[in-house]
Amino acid sequence: MQGRARCAVMPAFSGPLELREYPLRMDPEPGASWVRVEAAGVCGTDVHLWKGQLPVPLPLIMGHETVGRIECLGEGLTHDWSQNPLGVGDRVTWSSGVFCNSCYFCKVKVNPSRCIDRKAYGISYNCDESPHFLGGYAEYIYLRPGTAIFKLPHTLSTEAVVGSGCALVTAVHGLERLRIEWNDVVVIQGTGPVGISALALAKSSGAQIVIVVGGPDHRLAIAKRFGADYRVNIDQLTSPSHRIERVKELCADHGAPYGPDVVIECAGVPEAFAEGIEMVRDGGKYLVLGHYADAGALRFNPHWITRKQITIYGSWASEPRHMYAALQFLESNPKEFPFELLVTHRFPLERADDALQATAKWTSGKSVIVPHGD
Amino acid sequence: MQGRARCAVMPAFSGPLELREYPLRMDPEPGASWVRVEAAGVCGTDVHLWKGQLPVPLPLIMGHETVGRIECLGEGLTHDWSQNPLGVGDRVTWSSGVFCNSCYFCKVKVNPSRCIDRKAYGISYNCDESPHFLGGYAEYIYLRPGTAIFKLPHTLSTEAVVGSGCALVTAVHGLERLRIEWNDVVVIQGTGPVGISALALAKSSGAQIVIVVGGPDHRLAIAKRFGADYRVNIDQLTSPSHRIERVKELCADHGAPYGPDVVIECAGVPEAFAEGIEMVRDGGKYLVLGHYADAGALRFNPHWITRKQITIYGSWASEPRHMYAALQFLESNPKEFPFELLVTHRFPLERADDALQATAKWTSGKSVIVPHGD
Amino acid sequence: MQGRARCAVMPAFSGPLELREYPLRMDPEPGASWVRVEAAGVCGTDVHLWKGQLPVPLPLIMGHETVGRIECLGEGLTHDWSQNPLGVGDRVTWSSGVFCNSCYFCKVKVNPSRCIDRKAYGISYNCDESPHFLGGYAEYIYLRPGTAIFKLPHTLSTEAVVGSGCALVTAVHGLERLRIEWNDVVVIQGTGPVGISALALAKSSGAQIVIVVGGPDHRLAIAKRFGADYRVNIDQLTSPSHRIERVKELCADHGAPYGPDVVIECAGVPEAFAEGIEMVRDGGKYLVLGHYADAGALRFNPHWITRKQITIYGSWASEPRHMYAALQFLESNPKEFPFELLVTHRFPLERADDALQATAKWTSGKSVIVPHGD
Amino acid sequence: MQGRARCAVMPAFSGPLELREYPLRMDPEPGASWVRVEAAGVCGTDVHLWKGQLPVPLPLIMGHETVGRIECLGEGLTHDWSQNPLGVGDRVTWSSGVFCNSCYFCKVKVNPSRCIDRKAYGISYNCDESPHFLGGYAEYIYLRPGTAIFKLPHTLSTEAVVGSGCALVTAVHGLERLRIEWNDVVVIQGTGPVGISALALAKSSGAQIVIVVGGPDHRLAIAKRFGADYRVNIDQLTSPSHRIERVKELCADHGAPYGPDVVIECAGVPEAFAEGIEMVRDGGKYLVLGHYADAGALRFNPHWITRKQITIYGSWASEPRHMYAALQFLESNPKEFPFELLVTHRFPLERADDALQATAKWTSGKSVIVPHGD
Repeated sequence: MQGRARCAVMPAFSGPLELREYPLRMDPEPGASWVRVEAAGVCGTDVHLWKGQLPVPLPLIMGHETVGRIECLGEGLTHDWSQNPLGVGDRVTWSSGVFCNSCYFCKVKVNPSRCIDRKAYGISYNCDESPHFLGGYAEYIYLRPGTAIFKLPHTLSTEAVVGSGCALVTAVHGLERLRIEWNDVVVIQGTGPVGISALALAKSSGAQIVIVVGGPDHRLAIAKRFGADYRVNIDQLTSPSHRIERVKELCADHGAPYGPDVVIECAGVPEAFAEGIEMVRDGGKYLVLGHYADAGALRFNPHWITRKQITIYGSWASEPRHMYAALQFLESNPKEFPFELLVTHRFPLERADDALQATAKWTSGKSVIVPHGD
Repeated sequence: MQGRARCAVMPAFSGPLELREYPLRMDPEPGASWVRVEAAGVCGTDVHLWKGQLPVPLPLIMGHETVGRIECLGEGLTHDWSQNPLGVGDRVTWSSGVFCNSCYFCKVKVNPSRCIDRKAYGISYNCDESPHFLGGYAEYIYLRPGTAIFKLPHTLSTEAVVGSGCALVTAVHGLERLRIEWNDVVVIQGTGPVGISALALAKSSGAQIVIVVGGPDHRLAIAKRFGADYRVNIDQLTSPSHRIERVKELCADHGAPYGPDVVIECAGVPEAFAEGIEMVRDGGKYLVLGHYADAGALRFNPHWITRKQITIYGSWASEPRHMYAALQFLESNPKEFPFELLVTHRFPLERADDALQATAKWTSGKSVIVPHGD
Repeated sequence: MQGRARCAVMPAFSGPLELREYPLRMDPEPGASWVRVEAAGVCGTDVHLWKGQLPVPLPLIMGHETVGRIECLGEGLTHDWSQNPLGVGDRVTWSSGVFCNSCYFCKVKVNPSRCIDRKAYGISYNCDESPHFLGGYAEYIYLRPGTAIFKLPHTLSTEAVVGSGCALVTAVHGLERLRIEWNDVVVIQGTGPVGISALALAKSSGAQIVIVVGGPDHRLAIAKRFGADYRVNIDQLTSPSHRIERVKELCADHGAPYGPDVVIECAGVPEAFAEGIEMVRDGGKYLVLGHYADAGALRFNPHWITRKQITIYGSWASEPRHMYAALQFLESNPKEFPFELLVTHRFPLERADDALQATAKWTSGKSVIVPHGD
Repeated sequence: MQGRARCAVMPAFSGPLELREYPLRMDPEPGASWVRVEAAGVCGTDVHLWKGQLPVPLPLIMGHETVGRIECLGEGLTHDWSQNPLGVGDRVTWSSGVFCNSCYFCKVKVNPSRCIDRKAYGISYNCDESPHFLGGYAEYIYLRPGTAIFKLPHTLSTEAVVGSGCALVTAVHGLERLRIEWNDVVVIQGTGPVGISALALAKSSGAQIVIVVGGPDHRLAIAKRFGADYRVNIDQLTSPSHRIERVKELCADHGAPYGPDVVIECAGVPEAFAEGIEMVRDGGKYLVLGHYADAGALRFNPHWITRKQITIYGSWASEPRHMYAALQFLESNPKEFPFELLVTHRFPLERADDALQATAKWTSGKSVIVPHGD
């Protein structure tokens, strides 16, 4: 197939997205494929990218959490990452990050998410360069050789996959780093997609109780639906010290008189870091999961780390095996964790900018771009 | 025995220590003992206490790393912590911290160094209150029931024990939390007693190379004697970015092209925290060991933790089992790690203030107070 | 209170239990207490003791999983292990094991369940010696100083506590050693109380699916009630190779094509060991939890351990903190894991032997002795 | 280059090796290379292969620990595994195992040494099939695409690399699984190459003392040279119970009154398994490293695992990153651990059978085949 296809492009930081067309040549190199996009999630990270908080090339087609159907397969691409046969028309998703498999981090340290040459769809590619279509906000996307593609089972809806998005795989990776132990009392800071994903994982990882600290109301309602035992509304308790006090009271009611065993930061706001460290009990664990982008610095006293004897974990992005596990999890727990409910707004491609703004202003649960209509 | 005994007292923060006398009644309660002090180390923490950087009662007899001889044993105190028989005249040292063994941290979380009712000799007791002598800067010290006492073997000198002081047990605990893995490239920030102790442990824990960043020259010389593979002099490389650059060059020469696997902070200066986190390779580990006292805050960006995917450990004080291990280590490695060499200055009790100032000004390796003369 | 009280005594291995009376003097030493027994569970270990498979003194009052009410408190015993106030009439349970807190395993290695001087109620005491009553199969029991007593909340029934018995705390300890990771595919060998407890913990620890291998039917029904995703009936699939094949098929249906990530042995039969090791996938984990007693040897090839690259964990008894967590768990999850349902048979003290035989012959879920009637 | 080259072939189990010629065509496929063999180590595993204790194709050119020089590079093969430039004439070694990088163990479980399609030089290839030369006992060897090749620095002798052989990388992997902790008391069963390698790693990983149990005398002498603190001669103490007693006495002298913290099995004899488990202290760790081949079963009681509360680790083969670390270790510690001293016998290719028999009869430290003479 030849011709042109449409996409939503970010030509400059902090300005509106534009609808553009680029030439499309569907002759994939060996191991590559072309996919027709069904739905592209708008991630909070896209808002950070739009604000220029991570170094990305311009112009850029964003979109790193996408579901589509195989349109065309390059030579040798016969199976998906899990060794399932792959054919034209199959509905698929894929890991946004593609690793080099040969650098120090990929090979020597087995730490591929820190691959020196990592490229990510929707993040790393200037769309003026061929093959142009390397982000999800478009009618088609080109998947390069080495992409970890996952064929989706019929039992798994596109909404659930896009609704969980990169938030769920990020949380799977994060909670692999900070292991929740059976009976832990857990606090989650933030009720955006990463927070909701961390909540789902904590609830299914043996946490005794999970307290979420977040807002606004519609997100707290989702947290309740996903099983949050308690919800602390930051719009009501606006002072960090009051929130810490409230959390410690709740913990004390559950046999944890000095605060939570585990705090998971999914807020992306610098001040949350100090609040979370003050919240966690001495000897506890803290995961900084929400700072994928650079949202700035805060004043911080390292004495707290020594005196409280805590452990702090960072976790960046994810690996394909985290998506493998995430998809299994979605398939196994559709009733307990209905991620499709997170998708509250759907936009055609020409309204991609509205989709982004809805996410930026926290008015949507999750915005999704549907390039070919419903 | 009855009478009076002398001690060096801190009556107020940041003022001179005073020589005082208090009444001495040698009738220990069951499980307690009186010890005649042979040598009391002056720890960097004492300088922090003197500056008022930790909440302590006043007046205070400082001194939490002490060796002495049993003068008098209370009923039922027949064996030391390791179940060795204990008698009058035995040379001993002891853990400065005494735990309650019944609080949440002692029992439920097995985290006794964060015991809610932890008391420490030389730190927690107002010396105006009987039995007055609960710090090492004195002729005698009273060891309360439950103190972890260790009888010293003849092969272990008083100088080696006081020279290693609380620094070594602190480092044993710290490196139990952040485990050095075989072949790790390790950087240590700071060449005070904690830094030298961490160096000794890293060298004997499978580190491929250990780089120390510190000063002044006399401390770097000790670091060299203790096996530091490379020494970066902070008096010569005064800029953090130059030090980071130098460290990364050295790492690259040893198969670690992106920086050290492990950085251990033993500097106690807030800015060291940011420098260490920038130094460590992505996916690496960082131990904040030198911030026992509150030395203030710095500006810090939590994005680094997420993006670098690191793990940060805090470690507070130590447990008796760490001293058990530390004494074994001293006894097993006298030639490789001659901790007695750290003791460069000896002071009589009446010059305790000079001893403290020598430590504050970093003019000594380790100052020791010898209350009864040599 | 003075007088005599009744108890069920094992005078010799493999013979009938006898009803006896011993003198009772209710003047507990400081820190001790007398408890009026409400219910004493009959544990599978009691059957092993009765068969002479562990070295125990004779005559013996068995019973190490007991609930009762405080009848009399020794001086100084004012709070339970969790620091709750304790008074006469309070309903309590306690850890069967009492540790010395001073041996190498208690102190140096922080491994108290292997305490050199560990004593256990119902196991370690010759009942001919005063104070006689140190096992649960009796009207009263004497709790020595240092016993970890837990006051039971009103929301927790005696049946649930005795129904979970020492099986649950054993499983809490075992699964602390072999950590189940989120999304693990888990197999449990055995559907006795330890197996059912391990099932409850696995289901609440993030296991993707839990397959139990056991029988007879009434125990498989309990496993189903406790959430076992699949049940393999050993009375139907009598050959190990067929069971292994069946388990691997089920695993393959859940993304684990080479067998379970984790196998937990709760069967107590030597042959289960080889079967479990063959079952677990390469690189997986195996917990040997059911061999508290010596049930004999089997032929085993250590090559399997190397070639399969597995990790095998042993776990012995439990610590008080495991009971603290177990009671929290029972209280938090009454509907999901109704341990009181395990109690299927109740016996008066004079029928203690029948209670033991019901357990030996697997005809009961759990037999309980009720010394004072319902 | 075209022609024929010589190799030593095993045509049948337990019979003599034969010298054969096969056609040689030096036109490697892309990513592959031809290497001129300088030295091929004879591994204990080769003896097991010769006895038919692992399933291998026949006829077979054995030899999986080899050093040679690049003779010819296929297209695209420009750098070694560590990203060093690679050219004709470079002296290299390589990982014997080549992984598929796409199976469940390679991808989902990140457990590549258990790769479903793992192939190993000297083990997996029928030499009647082209390109014939896929084992080290030959003048040339063909390295297939994907082989992890390591260019050797000038400072690292061929003897040291072949002397450490696959034993060192096996031990690096094994000790990554069972982490030795600082201050551990360690016992190593066996003084063959794996035992000596484990000794070197234990000595450099923070072990307080390392006791080796092995023989004959010439191997114990090597163990002494590599720093074994104590040596227990199995030819003198022929009874397991006497050896266990002796080891426990030595441990008790070093603060470990109940036996070693860690036992590492490197003996390859089934009975060593029971002896090692009896030796290790309660709560300790046991690594089964020497059972790469199936040397048969023994009678074993799983009760020991529960009662002693131990952890048992298996470890199979190694990954390229273990060789990366091993080569760094060899380069960093030439004086402390002179692996070249293990090479005691050198044989021309036509005497490959003698080389194998010298290893089988334990008359050599390490036998090496030198196909082109010295």
